[in-house]
Amino acid sequence: MNFGKKIILCEVGPRDGLQNECTILTVDQKVELINDITDAGYKVIEVGSFMSPKAVPQMATTDEVMKKIKRKDGVEYRVLIANLKGVERAIACDCKKVKLNVSASRAHNLANLNRTPEETVAGFQACVDLAKANNIIVSGSISMPFGSPWERYIPIQDVKSIIEAYLKAGVNQISLSDASGMAVPSQINSMCKEMIKSYPEVSWILHLHNTRGVAMANIIAGLDAGIDCFDTSFGGLGGCPFVPGAAGNIASEDVIHMLSEMGIETGIDLDKMIEVAKKVQKFVGHETDSYILKAGKSSELIRELPKGQGKNETQK
Amino acid sequence: MNFGKKIILCEVGPRDGLQNECTILTVDQKVELINDITDAGYKVIEVGSFMSPKAVPQMATTDEVMKKIKRKDGVEYRVLIANLKGVERAIACDCKKVKLNVSASRAHNLANLNRTPEETVAGFQACVDLAKANNIIVSGSISMPFGSPWERYIPIQDVKSIIEAYLKAGVNQISLSDASGMAVPSQINSMCKEMIKSYPEVSWILHLHNTRGVAMANIIAGLDAGIDCFDTSFGGLGGCPFVPGAAGNIASEDVIHMLSEMGIETGIDLDKMIEVAKKVQKFVGHETDSYILKAGKSSELIRELPKGQGKNETQK
Repeated sequence: MNFGKKIILCEVGPRDGLQNECTILTVDQKVELINDITDAGYKVIEVGSFMSPKAVPQMATTDEVMKKIKRKDGVEYRVLIANLKGVERAIACDCKKVKLNVSASRAHNLANLNRTPEETVAGFQACVDLAKANNIIVSGSISMPFGSPWERYIPIQDVKSIIEAYLKAGVNQISLSDASGMAVPSQINSMCKEMIKSYPEVSWILHLHNTRGVAMANIIAGLDAGIDCFDTSFGGLGGCPFVPGAAGNIASEDVIHMLSEMGIETGIDLDKMIEVAKKVQKFVGHETDSYILKAGKSSELIRELPKGQGKNETQK
Repeated sequence: MNFGKKIILCEVGPRDGLQNECTILTVDQKVELINDITDAGYKVIEVGSFMSPKAVPQMATTDEVMKKIKRKDGVEYRVLIANLKGVERAIACDCKKVKLNVSASRAHNLANLNRTPEETVAGFQACVDLAKANNIIVSGSISMPFGSPWERYIPIQDVKSIIEAYLKAGVNQISLSDASGMAVPSQINSMCKEMIKSYPEVSWILHLHNTRGVAMANIIAGLDAGIDCFDTSFGGLGGCPFVPGAAGNIASEDVIHMLSEMGIETGIDLDKMIEVAKKVQKFVGHETDSYILKAGKSSELIRELPKGQGKNETQK
């Protein structure tokens, strides 16, 4: 098994986590969290989305948040967008990285939008052009390539066809997003290997939800395939768009803790992210699916030996 | 990556799960659960333990439970024991499989018991002899070989030394138990590979707790190393003996669901085990750390396409 050596984690809690919450955070709360995350050492942070405020009220203030955060050189502050309006908002608040998304579900795309996923991606061309003309980097996401509620299994050729549409549009950083939490390790491992082999020019991100408790195993399967970039969310915030009450994205602090125990470098300060996760729980007003917040770090478990008649020489 | 083809799951909920609960189940409730588990297709069930009723009151009725369950041919009904008294109780209720346990923590053993883990195992010889004379099979467990609260890392040579003590005592089925939830996939993978290579005569079991959210990833790492037998607990019941309120054993239904989605055979009826886990939650009176009980199976997510103007030919 290959576990990798150095991993890039992208903190998507401010977007994929908070957009799933009933409580809408204030601009100042969001800014505080994002500044904390920057301070913890993250190099990629998904700040929010430029969607219609009616559709996603939790993200209505992303423009303001972008303006108020303390940006650090070398850190990517990414925003999810859906269309040209998103690029315009990115330009207006000096956002230098946007992410587009398309569902891998052909049937759903056709039924909802009357176009294929590839046609949707081709329609992003104007976004990519406007973004690039304004020095904004564009990445692309494919949601549910591992299975969707409409097609349980997506043929790999369909996913490849979407990737090729992204490449044609000039997007070569691509995120595979298991938003429905249906992926399993064998599938993640074989699909990621196949994708890395077929498209060496693509920079990959895996975006994993822990809906059915398998996200950490999927990270391991992704690492083995050669993926070195993963989206995670503070406190495990998030959810499954199709299952009310289900667990959310894999928790950042749980992933950082595991990788750290495995000797894999992330450059992120675990203690600071534990404090961020606690703050998030306070802001949203409820507990979240974080194991480390409940159990503490393995190193914190270490305790004094019980008083006894033990032979001294063995207590070294 | 190697994911295996056929996996044996051992249901340890009736022992490791229920012993951690405030609510003590009645004999009839336990019998009902164990009969349900038998009916779901399990070949190994840990029914309870023969410990002092004062120390573990939840397990005080294991003898009665053993007598009342409907035993099915080919199914192993295992009971955890600590000493000769345990073997005697096993004989009295016609229990044909007992499990001994020793902590891998040298320092803790010495401080508490004034003997090394190897000396503890050597002391099991009388248990093994009495058991074998009565046609009772004996297995051995090593708790915390991946790290303990007293020695964060246990030298692999120390673990090997315990295994050799078990082999010397005539025990060749050995369970490696991450009761403290400190193991990580790289460690599981390398230690299991090393153990399988060094002791080909041993039949291995991995017993994983999800204390820090890593148990499913550890299963994947164990599978890759060649382990084909895992302990799991209904509903994810259990806990970490050192962290009050922490998550318990990895949930049986979550593991069965993942393996089933991976095309790995367990011989266990997932739907029946989901019903068992629901019953367990009712009996103990609280929710448990089960993902499948919250999110449902992936197959249940499948839904009708939204009404739209989709092109018919693509909805095939």
